[in-house]
Formats: sequence, structure tokens, C-alpha cells
Amino acid sequence: MTTHNTTPNNHHLLEHTLAHVELFKGNFLHAFRDTVRLPDGSNATREFVVHPGAVMIVAMRDDGRLVVERQYRHPVQQVMLEFPAGKLDAGEASWACAQRELLEETGYRAAEWAYAGVLHPVISYSTEFIDIWFARGLTEGACQLDDGEFLDVLDASVNELLAWARDGQLTDAKTLTGLLWVQNHLSGAWPLTWQRV
Amino acid sequence: MTTHNTTPNNHHLLEHTLAHVELFKGNFLHAFRDTVRLPDGSNATREFVVHPGAVMIVAMRDDGRLVVERQYRHPVQQVMLEFPAGKLDAGEASWACAQRELLEETGYRAAEWAYAGVLHPVISYSTEFIDIWFARGLTEGACQLDDGEFLDVLDASVNELLAWARDGQLTDAKTLTGLLWVQNHLSGAWPLTWQRV
Repeated sequence: MTTHNTTPNNHHLLEHTLAHVELFKGNFLHAFRDTVRLPDGSNATREFVVHPGAVMIVAMRDDGRLVVERQYRHPVQQVMLEFPAGKLDAGEASWACAQRELLEETGYRAAEWAYAGVLHPVISYSTEFIDIWFARGLTEGACQLDDGEFLDVLDASVNELLAWARDGQLTDAKTLTGLLWVQNHLSGAWPLTWQRV
Repeated sequence: MTTHNTTPNNHHLLEHTLAHVELFKGNFLHAFRDTVRLPDGSNATREFVVHPGAVMIVAMRDDGRLVVERQYRHPVQQVMLEFPAGKLDAGEASWACAQRELLEETGYRAAEWAYAGVLHPVISYSTEFIDIWFARGLTEGACQLDDGEFLDVLDASVNELLAWARDGQLTDAKTLTGLLWVQNHLSGAWPLTWQRV
């Protein structure tokens, strides 16, 4: 048994890239097939999507309720309950993206922000990462949705969100990861460092 | 403001599929581009990966420690800390898959199992779902890894896993979602119904 720490010996696990071939480039999906050398010296292929990265915002209103969205997601054929999120534009800093996405999708601006951490939604076939931001000191305005974007903005208490997660009404992994952060932040176990805009 | 419940009015959010075209079929990735009619009557395209679905296992040893894996994940170029997980074989039931994957990847068999719920890792571009299973009454044996699969099996306390999540050493969204379940199950808030094999 080993422990997980910042400097483990990973030589017996690492893969080395031998070739990198574009599989296809669509309007949204951009996929590659890499050939890798495995730890035992044999070769394998790895197919995956290249993604620019994204942000998610846990926006806390003064009354303690959190800002969430309901949005139809075609791949899973369901209206999903989610924390606001969106992809990084080329060259855009994570915090700037978080402010932009919160404003565009929900109409809220926040006076204070805290970076919580990063999550990887799909490590087996995408490079995507999602930076998790907390926001507070909210002021409400009008949404500025992109063309073709349709969503409801609502607010919910932490206990409502936890009950929906328990009961299978909230199944989006980034939002569930956000809830883990919320629960541990509110208990005092996971402190945040706030910055004013 | 609306509330999220099981029978909301979703007509203003729904998309209707007009065309379904295969983009490409690789060794692993199978991608489609759908044309959809948006709620305002205009059209848009949705590109996504079709995935067979998967399971994740939160395996609890008698000493309270959880079974985790360290595995190199090529798309994110990192050794990741994860709960055991794996894809459903064609026609395979979720519980059978959970038992098979736990045994193959870690060597553990479990006497009791509980279905917790489902998570969707990447709702914007994959059909993937991951069923979350808890397992207890473990007996340890030898792993039966697939060819080309290299991973470390270890065990960690819940507090260690939570500290690694807080500190950015554990960033896999399915595993973080599993930790949300663990934390709320152990507090008594999210009970489970156990079944014997």
C-alpha cells in the first residue's frame, strides 16, 4: 500500500506519448488519437477530446440561497439543475471568465470572489478542467444570454440542493462537486480566501 | 423564480432532434452531430460522444478506510486518485458490472452492496452516466487487471480523502461526487439500502 502525496514514485504508472493525430474537428468537438508507450513497454492508443477548460460559479446570495440554472442538455435528454458555468474564451483568465459567465447567464454581479479549486469532469477522454469559484456580495440585473441559449435562473437553499442530490434530481457531477465544497466551506472545514473585484 | 421539482413546465427549454449524423467512430470515441430545433424555433447543432455508461464503487473496509486507485490518465497528463470505476459491457446490469470492476481492478469482493444514485460527468458533450454503488463486507484477493491497465490500489481514511480534495490533490469529479455521498451517508443524512450478494 502506498499513500497519495505530492511526490510519489509514478514511474510504474506513466505513459509516454509517441504520436498525436487529429481524429476530427467539428463545430464543437475536437478529438485526437495518441499512441502511447505503456509502463511495460507495449503501445496503446488513447482517444480524447481537447477542451479549452471552463469555470463554475457557486454564487451565494445575502440570504444564503445559491444561484442555480435549469437547462436542457441534449446528450442526456434532460433538463439539468446546475451551478452557472461556461468555457474559457481564448486567452481569457479564469476569474474574468467566471465574472463574465455569471453576468451573462444569470444577470448577477458579485463584489467578492474566492477561488476554491479545480475539478476534472472526464479524465478518461477529455482534457477538460473546471475552475471552481465562489462569489458573494451579489447584485441582480438582466441576463445576457448567447443566441440559442435557453435556461431558467433560480435560487435554492443548500438544504434543498442536498435533498435533490440525495433523491436523484441533481446529478450533474460539477454541481455535486460544488455542493461538496459548499458543505465543507459552510462547516468551516474548507476556508476560502476572498478577493474584492 | 421557479422551483426544481419532478414535474416542472419545461416547454420553454426543450430541444427537438431533427437529424442525427455519425461524426466518427474510433476505437473508443463514438461521436455524433445532431441538429435540434430550439425553443424559439431556430436550429442548432449539438456534437457529443455516445458512451455505454459506467459504474463507480465506494468500497468501505471494516476499519472504515475506503479503497481508492492511483492511475495515470493521459488526457489530463496526471496520475489521478479515484474510486474504482469502469464501463458497462454490452447488456451488463449495473450491479454485476460494479462487482466485476471492483474485483478486476482491486481484488476485493464485497458481501453487501447499496445503490446510491447516478451522476452525469459531462452533460454538455457526452451521454455518459455513472451509477454510484457502495460496497462493504470486503474480502481481499488478487487484482485481475485488463491488458494495458496499470494502477495502484490503496486505502485511505475519509478524512484523508477530504483533505486531499480540499488541497487540490483529488480533482476527479466522479470521486468528489462519491465523497459527497460518503460524507452525507456517514452523517446519517443520506441512508442507503443494503443488499447481500
